[in-house]
Amino acid sequence: MTYKLTYFNVTALAEPIRFLLSYLNTDFEDYRFDRELWPTIKPTMPFGKVPVLEIDGKTLNQSTAITRYLAKKAGLTGSDDWEALLIDIAVDNVHDFRQALAGYFYDANEESKKLKYEPLLKETIPFYMDKFESIVAENKGYFVNGKLTWADLFFVAVLDYLNYMAGIDLLDGRPQLQALKATVVAIPQIKAWIAKRPVTP
Amino acid sequence: MTYKLTYFNVTALAEPIRFLLSYLNTDFEDYRFDRELWPTIKPTMPFGKVPVLEIDGKTLNQSTAITRYLAKKAGLTGSDDWEALLIDIAVDNVHDFRQALAGYFYDANEESKKLKYEPLLKETIPFYMDKFESIVAENKGYFVNGKLTWADLFFVAVLDYLNYMAGIDLLDGRPQLQALKATVVAIPQIKAWIAKRPVTP
Repeated sequence: MTYKLTYFNVTALAEPIRFLLSYLNTDFEDYRFDRELWPTIKPTMPFGKVPVLEIDGKTLNQSTAITRYLAKKAGLTGSDDWEALLIDIAVDNVHDFRQALAGYFYDANEESKKLKYEPLLKETIPFYMDKFESIVAENKGYFVNGKLTWADLFFVAVLDYLNYMAGIDLLDGRPQLQALKATVVAIPQIKAWIAKRPVTP
Repeated sequence: MTYKLTYFNVTALAEPIRFLLSYLNTDFEDYRFDRELWPTIKPTMPFGKVPVLEIDGKTLNQSTAITRYLAKKAGLTGSDDWEALLIDIAVDNVHDFRQALAGYFYDANEESKKLKYEPLLKETIPFYMDKFESIVAENKGYFVNGKLTWADLFFVAVLDYLNYMAGIDLLDGRPQLQALKATVVAIPQIKAWIAKRPVTP
């Protein structure tokens, strides 16, 4: 099977797919285009968005759906439907947090963007991050049931993007999440991927 | 098993869960609270949001994760991992459209809200709705592979909410989607649910 991933030259929403493909030891073409090409590429994408993964020429959008599919192949979707549910909930909670950060970060109006930063920093970020820290503490170092699942890989894969939007180190003062990150980046395939991936902002 | 669903007295994000529970012939407590109670209820919810479903006293948030879990019990997640992926993609495409509508509808600034309506009506709505119409045409009346899946139930369940935010009938001039809606609301358990559910805006 051939895999071609199309995205901007950043980690962000494509990185969970790259993590899972790496975890599976799957070779893939990691096509990264320059931003100035986006107006040309956009109309060729299924819903005008990226990342997109082509598997044997079949074009798929929606990064979370793709990551879940790859996670099934990797045995990282839990041992039953209940665990799969708890993993899906964890992933969507991280997405809610990502969208809260994006609501600030991508605000085109400089004035309203500035007004959003203090509540983001003092309310939204501690609200979500402290919950994530507690959940990982209660689940013995992982998001769900004391074992590695794709929720953990997903969180660590998007963490650089979350930090970038937040403008701070979100793991600062959160030892459980620091330990989770250390666990994930020590997985040999993930470690090898991080060592070889392009350095991006 | 006991099921208690907590939400505002509207269809919106809880309706896919209500559809799936009804499809499964599962009795559930459909707890709907008045908006003035929200400040009291909010801090008691896992991530300060609803809908929330309690299953045997275990509290779950994230409506899409819950709907997928119930869809597995109902045999509506496709016949293999590839179909499950296509269904997840369809659902998340509808969510992207919902969020585009919400970006207009919930804009608290009346001036910027007004400015958003024309591009929404002339670009965003036709872009998504015409794609959905084509996908259903290509898939013999359903979102995925010519058979009923939870993507179809999900779409029809949130359709009233999408129409409400759009301020128009989104199915107008889209016969494939009209037929899909007719198919879903003719399912005996869904028909019975719609007949007995509270009438809400």
